[in-house]
Amino acid sequence: MKKIKIALLGIGTVGGGVWEILQTNKEEIFRNSSCEIEVAKILVKNTDKKRDKAIPQNLFTSNYEDIVKDKEIQIIVEVMGGIEEARDYIVRGIKAKKHIVTANKALLATHGEEIIKEAKTAGVELYYEASVAGGIPIIHALKESLAGNKVQQIMGILNGTTNYILTKMTNEKVDFDMVLKEAQEKGYAEADPTADVEGYDAAHKLTILSSLSFGTSVKFHEVYREGISKITPIDIEYAKELGYVIKLLAIGKGTDDSLELRVHPTFIPQTHPLASVNDSFNAVFVKGNAVGDLMFYGRGAGDLPTGSAVVGDIISVIKDINCKNAAAHAIEEKSNRNIKPMGETEGEYYIRLIVNDKPGVLGTIASLFGKNNVSLSSVIQKGEGVPSVSLVFITHFTKEADVQRAIEEIISLEEVAKLANLIRVENGQKRMGA
Amino acid sequence: MKKIKIALLGIGTVGGGVWEILQTNKEEIFRNSSCEIEVAKILVKNTDKKRDKAIPQNLFTSNYEDIVKDKEIQIIVEVMGGIEEARDYIVRGIKAKKHIVTANKALLATHGEEIIKEAKTAGVELYYEASVAGGIPIIHALKESLAGNKVQQIMGILNGTTNYILTKMTNEKVDFDMVLKEAQEKGYAEADPTADVEGYDAAHKLTILSSLSFGTSVKFHEVYREGISKITPIDIEYAKELGYVIKLLAIGKGTDDSLELRVHPTFIPQTHPLASVNDSFNAVFVKGNAVGDLMFYGRGAGDLPTGSAVVGDIISVIKDINCKNAAAHAIEEKSNRNIKPMGETEGEYYIRLIVNDKPGVLGTIASLFGKNNVSLSSVIQKGEGVPSVSLVFITHFTKEADVQRAIEEIISLEEVAKLANLIRVENGQKRMGA
Repeated sequence: MKKIKIALLGIGTVGGGVWEILQTNKEEIFRNSSCEIEVAKILVKNTDKKRDKAIPQNLFTSNYEDIVKDKEIQIIVEVMGGIEEARDYIVRGIKAKKHIVTANKALLATHGEEIIKEAKTAGVELYYEASVAGGIPIIHALKESLAGNKVQQIMGILNGTTNYILTKMTNEKVDFDMVLKEAQEKGYAEADPTADVEGYDAAHKLTILSSLSFGTSVKFHEVYREGISKITPIDIEYAKELGYVIKLLAIGKGTDDSLELRVHPTFIPQTHPLASVNDSFNAVFVKGNAVGDLMFYGRGAGDLPTGSAVVGDIISVIKDINCKNAAAHAIEEKSNRNIKPMGETEGEYYIRLIVNDKPGVLGTIASLFGKNNVSLSSVIQKGEGVPSVSLVFITHFTKEADVQRAIEEIISLEEVAKLANLIRVENGQKRMGA
Repeated sequence: MKKIKIALLGIGTVGGGVWEILQTNKEEIFRNSSCEIEVAKILVKNTDKKRDKAIPQNLFTSNYEDIVKDKEIQIIVEVMGGIEEARDYIVRGIKAKKHIVTANKALLATHGEEIIKEAKTAGVELYYEASVAGGIPIIHALKESLAGNKVQQIMGILNGTTNYILTKMTNEKVDFDMVLKEAQEKGYAEADPTADVEGYDAAHKLTILSSLSFGTSVKFHEVYREGISKITPIDIEYAKELGYVIKLLAIGKGTDDSLELRVHPTFIPQTHPLASVNDSFNAVFVKGNAVGDLMFYGRGAGDLPTGSAVVGDIISVIKDINCKNAAAHAIEEKSNRNIKPMGETEGEYYIRLIVNDKPGVLGTIASLFGKNNVSLSSVIQKGEGVPSVSLVFITHFTKEADVQRAIEEIISLEEVAKLANLIRVENGQKRMGA
């Protein structure tokens, strides 16, 4: 029986999941890879710390040199997280001709290009399925099964915490703050929830996915990003009334000469496949010019789902190991396209204004939309008679810059108390032909 | 630039799609495979026939020897369909050391094991992504990304025609016969619709998927099969009232020592991800012991979606071509498990009876269920007062044989006019813990 020795960097949630899968599914893994996988070393900060899993004490080391200098270790599995230290370990591992499997989205979103170049130069494999959408095999699909497609669009629910919060707000009609607090108490959200709630996590993942989908090296800071903290139960109710659901979407759209990359709360039709992705589930919707519409749905986080992706990658490396360095290193620059400034993107918009209910106010506002080339498809006015009312608009397809200019002019009107919310609409149906 | 020569066997719908993708997406394919793919020969029955696509006349041949003896052709792409001739060509191609890509589900479901053995012996690659669910990369996912999982369950909407018919029956409350006729007129259903409507097509695909998922060589005839021709708008209405949708599902469930394999109309909860898969879309829902619930959704047929899968496979072969014969040949026997007889499978059931509305009839029927260990979770009685009424039951979890025996005794009652329908329920929620 052929044995492959690997090392784990870190043994937290994901590392623990990988360890457990390697023990529990030994038989399946052997069948699918024709190899036995042995964890030969585990890098930890403190080798004396008590751990949940029954892991032989002699596997732990706090000295990375023990791993990088061990000639028998062929694969390094980075599941420690963080950026600079992980980068240093991975680059040193690559230079020592170790194949790399990593689950580190923040690292890849910031230093992906450099790491891929290093791997290519050294002729080693680099796999990173677990960095996006946990157990969902979207990276592999984009690299191989969809390799004959021109990817036109990618839309993902890539953050489980925000999807859980939005689902709960939708089902129970409660405020963002209340749901967030509850999620934190249950351990579903971090004490500092910024990375999830403000869309940084989703933007990291979109950076990786869009580099791969569009063959263009995307920088993290080029992704427009807006979180869900401004969403209220009122907006969710209006969405429902209008036939929509609100989701935090990561959206990438490609044309021949430019790309649109953005993470923001989005209205999607209740009939869109992404609309029924609830709770902490993730999903990625891809439109290719040959395959058409495709969606992948599953667990985007958790020890075993993420561990499943890592183990799948380890098996892929094993299958490649006897081969030449043939696998495509994927985030590398392949074509060069401009990232569209947010103002030049086009779409439909949900706009909710609080106005003083005076005669003629709707007319004044509608004219300002018209003057700025924003045409309206729906108007809802609620609460007639009281001094201030909600005015809700859904626009037709229009340019972001035009909407922003119209809003600016509208909120400077005396009769307008405030812009309560502006949420982008992705109308799958209408976009089909695009 | 490296050039790979391939041959197409057949240039019908799928072959035409492959040809078109290879022309249109040349640039993407080159980026992803580092190769130019050249169609060097196309096998057709009649080389003089006029065709839609502008294909150089000199590529056509009606003599397979021209292909199999051409040393420069490395990959044979079988998109001709049919069983015996395709099998002969593929086996001869394998013996001539050509790598094989096929879209032929009927062939693989009947002779898969033999063909895989031949490929393994000859040391050539064999890919067949397009044989199941068109553009959805489920085969690749099962072979690689999910290779670290013990697959516990697989449930698929694998036939677009029947899903289109059921969707239309659900939305428009019309009879099966009427929708079928319309579908035939529009070209969505074949003149002889048996293969689709009676579940043969879905059963072929389930044979392939379950061999792969469970590592057991499954024979086509071992799959229980029931079509949708008996489904009526009345059943669809009851399903809706009870919170369900009716879908033709292909179901495979594995335990350590046995397998359940069945294709039949099924009640699934409206909240299940498969419930919102409508029209001609396909979807495959997989439950792995590490990855948890996963779903793949997309176009299950059509020239470009199926062509996308074929081209993805060609690119996979190209990536492997410089390597040893490392790829796992997948349908081969890996573990040996019994296929559970249908009577031993367990589930919940929707049962609709037409009875004469006499006092005590419900009691008599309920007792017969009880006597046969079938316990009931819902009972609906409609149309009181008229001589014959519908009695609808949803059972708790129970054994198929018990239900069948109870039904047999019940329909022999004088008060029972007939069994209007029996449809199996897959209650995703309740099964989670299973």
